[in-house]
Amino acid sequence: MGYYGKHIFFCTNDRGADADRPSCNRCGASALRDYAKKRVKDLGLDGPGKVRVNVSGCLDRCEEGPVCVVYPDEVWYTYVDESDIDEIVESHLKDGKPVERLKI
Amino acid sequence: MGYYGKHIFFCTNDRGADADRPSCNRCGASALRDYAKKRVKDLGLDGPGKVRVNVSGCLDRCEEGPVCVVYPDEVWYTYVDESDIDEIVESHLKDGKPVERLKI
Repeated sequence: MGYYGKHIFFCTNDRGADADRPSCNRCGASALRDYAKKRVKDLGLDGPGKVRVNVSGCLDRCEEGPVCVVYPDEVWYTYVDESDIDEIVESHLKDGKPVERLKI
Repeated sequence: MGYYGKHIFFCTNDRGADADRPSCNRCGASALRDYAKKRVKDLGLDGPGKVRVNVSGCLDRCEEGPVCVVYPDEVWYTYVDESDIDEIVESHLKDGKPVERLKI
Protein backbone atom coordinates (compact mmCIF):
# COMPACT_ATOMS: atom_id res chain seq x y z
CA MET A 1 0.00 0.00 0.00
CA GLY A 2 1.11 3.57 -0.63
CA TYR A 3 2.00 6.05 2.06
CA TYR A 4 -1.66 7.05 2.23
CA GLY A 5 -4.45 4.57 1.64
CA LYS A 6 -6.64 7.24 0.01
CA HIS A 7 -5.21 10.55 -1.12
CA ILE A 8 -7.76 13.14 -2.23
CA PHE A 9 -6.88 16.38 -4.01
CA PHE A 10 -9.30 19.28 -4.33
CA CYS A 11 -8.61 21.74 -7.11
CA THR A 12 -8.81 25.22 -5.56
CA ASN A 13 -7.73 27.19 -8.60
CA ASP A 14 -9.35 30.61 -8.90
CA ARG A 15 -9.37 32.48 -12.18
CA GLY A 16 -11.49 35.31 -10.81
CA ALA A 17 -15.09 36.17 -11.58
CA ASP A 18 -14.43 37.71 -14.98
CA ALA A 19 -12.39 34.90 -16.55
CA ASP A 20 -13.45 33.19 -19.77
CA ARG A 21 -13.30 29.75 -18.17
CA PRO A 22 -14.85 28.59 -14.90
CA SER A 23 -12.59 27.65 -12.01
CA CYS A 24 -13.23 25.44 -9.01
CA ASN A 25 -12.75 28.03 -6.31
CA ARG A 26 -15.53 30.14 -7.84
CA CYS A 27 -17.78 27.24 -6.76
CA GLY A 28 -16.61 27.18 -3.15
CA ALA A 29 -13.84 24.61 -3.51
CA SER A 30 -11.61 25.96 -0.72
CA ALA A 31 -14.39 25.99 1.87
CA LEU A 32 -15.61 22.53 0.91
CA ARG A 33 -12.07 21.17 0.93
CA ASP A 34 -11.65 22.56 4.44
CA TYR A 35 -14.91 20.88 5.39
CA ALA A 36 -13.68 17.56 3.95
CA LYS A 37 -10.42 17.85 5.87
CA LYS A 38 -12.29 18.49 9.11
CA ARG A 39 -14.70 15.59 8.53
CA VAL A 40 -11.80 13.21 7.85
CA LYS A 41 -10.07 14.35 11.01
CA ASP A 42 -13.24 14.15 13.11
CA LEU A 43 -13.74 10.56 11.93
CA GLY A 44 -10.14 9.68 12.86
CA LEU A 45 -9.32 8.78 9.26
CA ASP A 46 -6.35 11.11 8.76
CA GLY A 47 -2.74 10.00 8.78
CA PRO A 48 -0.18 7.70 7.15
CA GLY A 49 -1.77 4.47 5.97
CA LYS A 50 -5.14 6.18 6.07
CA VAL A 51 -6.43 9.36 4.41
CA ARG A 52 -4.86 12.65 3.33
CA VAL A 53 -6.89 15.65 2.09
CA ASN A 54 -4.97 18.19 0.01
CA VAL A 55 -5.53 21.25 -2.10
CA SER A 56 -4.02 21.33 -5.57
CA GLY A 57 -3.56 23.65 -8.48
CA CYS A 58 -5.73 23.48 -11.59
CA LEU A 59 -6.59 19.87 -12.50
CA ASP A 60 -7.72 21.06 -15.95
CA ARG A 61 -11.24 19.68 -15.86
CA CYS A 62 -12.61 23.15 -15.18
CA GLU A 63 -15.82 22.84 -17.17
CA GLU A 64 -16.81 19.78 -15.09
CA GLY A 65 -15.94 21.44 -11.77
CA PRO A 66 -15.62 21.88 -8.98
CA VAL A 67 -13.57 18.69 -9.08
CA CYS A 68 -11.55 16.47 -6.80
CA VAL A 69 -9.70 13.22 -7.44
CA VAL A 70 -9.07 10.22 -5.19
CA TYR A 71 -5.81 8.32 -5.69
CA PRO A 72 -4.63 5.63 -6.11
CA ASP A 73 -8.20 4.78 -7.18
CA GLU A 74 -8.21 7.36 -10.02
CA VAL A 75 -11.80 8.29 -9.18
CA TRP A 76 -12.85 11.83 -10.07
CA TYR A 77 -15.80 13.66 -8.55
CA THR A 78 -17.72 16.84 -8.79
CA TYR A 79 -19.64 18.11 -5.78
CA VAL A 80 -22.01 20.89 -4.81
CA ASP A 81 -22.33 21.09 -1.06
CA GLU A 82 -21.42 19.60 2.30
CA SER A 83 -23.79 16.66 1.85
CA ASP A 84 -21.86 15.62 -1.26
CA ILE A 85 -18.61 15.87 0.68
CA ASP A 86 -20.10 13.82 3.52
CA GLU A 87 -20.95 11.08 1.05
CA ILE A 88 -17.48 11.05 -0.53
CA VAL A 89 -15.83 10.96 2.90
CA GLU A 90 -18.03 8.33 4.46
CA SER A 91 -18.70 6.06 1.50
CA HIS A 92 -15.42 6.26 -0.41
CA LEU A 93 -12.68 7.42 1.95
CA LYS A 94 -13.98 5.54 4.99
CA ASP A 95 -15.74 2.49 3.50
CA GLY A 96 -13.98 2.18 0.13
CA LYS A 97 -17.19 2.43 -1.93
CA PRO A 98 -16.99 5.09 -4.66
CA VAL A 99 -19.99 7.42 -4.98
CA GLU A 100 -21.34 6.67 -8.44
CA ARG A 101 -23.71 9.64 -8.68
CA LEU A 102 -20.90 12.18 -8.22
CA LYS A 103 -18.37 10.62 -10.58
CA ILE A 104 -17.18 12.50 -13.63
CA MET B 1 -6.85 4.05 -17.35
CA GLY B 2 -7.53 7.18 -15.34
CA TYR B 3 -8.01 10.64 -16.78
CA TYR B 4 -4.24 11.14 -16.64
CA GLY B 5 -1.79 8.30 -17.15
CA LYS B 6 0.67 9.79 -14.66
CA HIS B 7 -0.35 12.55 -12.27
CA ILE B 8 2.47 14.13 -10.29
CA PHE B 9 1.95 16.48 -7.35
CA PHE B 10 4.73 18.68 -5.97
CA CYS B 11 4.30 19.90 -2.43
CA THR B 12 4.96 23.65 -2.48
CA ASN B 13 4.08 24.35 1.13
CA ASP B 14 6.11 27.14 2.73
CA ARG B 15 6.28 27.53 6.50
CA GLY B 16 8.78 30.36 6.29
CA ALA B 17 12.43 30.38 7.25
CA ASP B 18 11.87 30.53 11.00
CA ALA B 19 9.45 27.62 11.37
CA ASP B 20 10.20 24.65 13.63
CA ARG B 21 9.67 22.18 10.79
CA PRO B 22 11.15 22.22 7.28
CA SER B 23 8.87 22.82 4.31
CA CYS B 24 9.30 21.92 0.67
CA ASN B 25 9.23 25.40 -0.76
CA ARG B 26 12.22 26.36 1.40
CA CYS B 27 14.10 23.86 -0.82
CA GLY B 28 13.03 25.39 -4.11
CA ALA B 29 9.92 23.27 -4.73
CA SER B 30 7.98 25.89 -6.69
CA ALA B 31 10.80 26.59 -9.13
CA LEU B 32 11.55 22.90 -9.65
CA ARG B 33 7.87 22.11 -10.13
CA ASP B 34 7.72 24.85 -12.78
CA TYR B 35 10.75 23.27 -14.40
CA ALA B 36 9.07 19.84 -14.37
CA LYS B 37 5.92 21.29 -15.92
CA LYS B 38 7.94 22.91 -18.69
CA ARG B 39 9.94 19.75 -19.37
CA VAL B 40 6.76 17.67 -19.62
CA LYS B 41 5.27 20.19 -22.02
CA ASP B 42 8.44 20.42 -24.11
CA LEU B 43 8.43 16.63 -24.46
CA GLY B 44 4.78 16.66 -25.57
CA LEU B 45 3.77 14.52 -22.60
CA ASP B 46 1.11 16.81 -21.14
CA GLY B 47 -2.61 16.28 -21.51
CA PRO B 48 -5.49 13.88 -20.86
CA GLY B 49 -4.35 10.27 -21.10
CA LYS B 50 -0.79 11.43 -20.60
CA VAL B 51 0.85 13.49 -17.83
CA ARG B 52 -0.31 16.28 -15.51
CA VAL B 53 2.05 18.22 -13.24
CA ASN B 54 0.41 19.96 -10.27
CA VAL B 55 1.30 21.83 -7.14
CA SER B 56 -0.29 20.72 -3.89
CA GLY B 57 -0.51 21.74 -0.28
CA CYS B 58 1.54 20.07 2.44
CA LEU B 59 1.91 16.33 1.84
CA ASP B 60 3.09 15.88 5.44
CA ARG B 61 6.40 14.21 4.72
CA CYS B 62 8.22 17.46 5.44
CA GLU B 63 11.31 15.96 7.06
CA GLU B 64 11.96 13.91 3.90
CA GLY B 65 11.40 16.86 1.55
CA PRO B 66 11.21 18.39 -0.83
CA VAL B 67 8.76 15.71 -1.96
CA CYS B 68 6.52 14.86 -4.87
CA VAL B 69 4.25 11.88 -5.54
CA VAL B 70 3.31 10.14 -8.78
CA TYR B 71 -0.18 8.63 -8.99
CA PRO B 72 -1.71 6.18 -9.63
CA ASP B 73 1.68 4.52 -9.08
CA GLU B 74 1.96 5.73 -5.45
CA VAL B 75 5.66 6.44 -5.96
CA TRP B 76 7.13 9.18 -3.76
CA TYR B 77 10.33 11.07 -4.50
CA THR B 78 12.63 13.62 -3.06
CA TYR B 79 14.80 15.72 -5.37
CA VAL B 80 17.52 18.31 -5.22
CA ASP B 81 17.97 19.94 -8.59
CA GLU B 82 16.98 20.04 -12.25
CA SER B 83 18.92 16.88 -13.06
CA ASP B 84 16.79 14.95 -10.57
CA ILE B 85 13.66 16.38 -12.17
CA ASP B 86 14.94 15.45 -15.62
CA GLU B 87 15.37 11.87 -14.47
CA ILE B 88 11.89 11.66 -12.93
CA VAL B 89 10.32 13.16 -16.06
CA GLU B 90 12.21 11.10 -18.61
CA SER B 91 12.50 7.77 -16.79
CA HIS B 92 9.24 7.61 -14.88
CA LEU B 93 6.73 9.96 -16.52
CA LYS B 94 7.86 9.28 -20.08
CA ASP B 95 9.16 5.70 -19.97
CA GLY B 96 7.30 4.30 -16.96
CA LYS B 97 10.43 3.32 -15.05
CA PRO B 98 10.51 4.67 -11.49
CA VAL B 99 13.77 6.27 -10.35
CA GLU B 100 14.92 4.04 -7.52
CA ARG B 101 17.65 6.32 -6.20
CA LEU B 102 15.21 9.19 -5.52
CA LYS B 103 12.42 7.16 -3.90
CA ILE B 104 11.44 7.84 -0.32
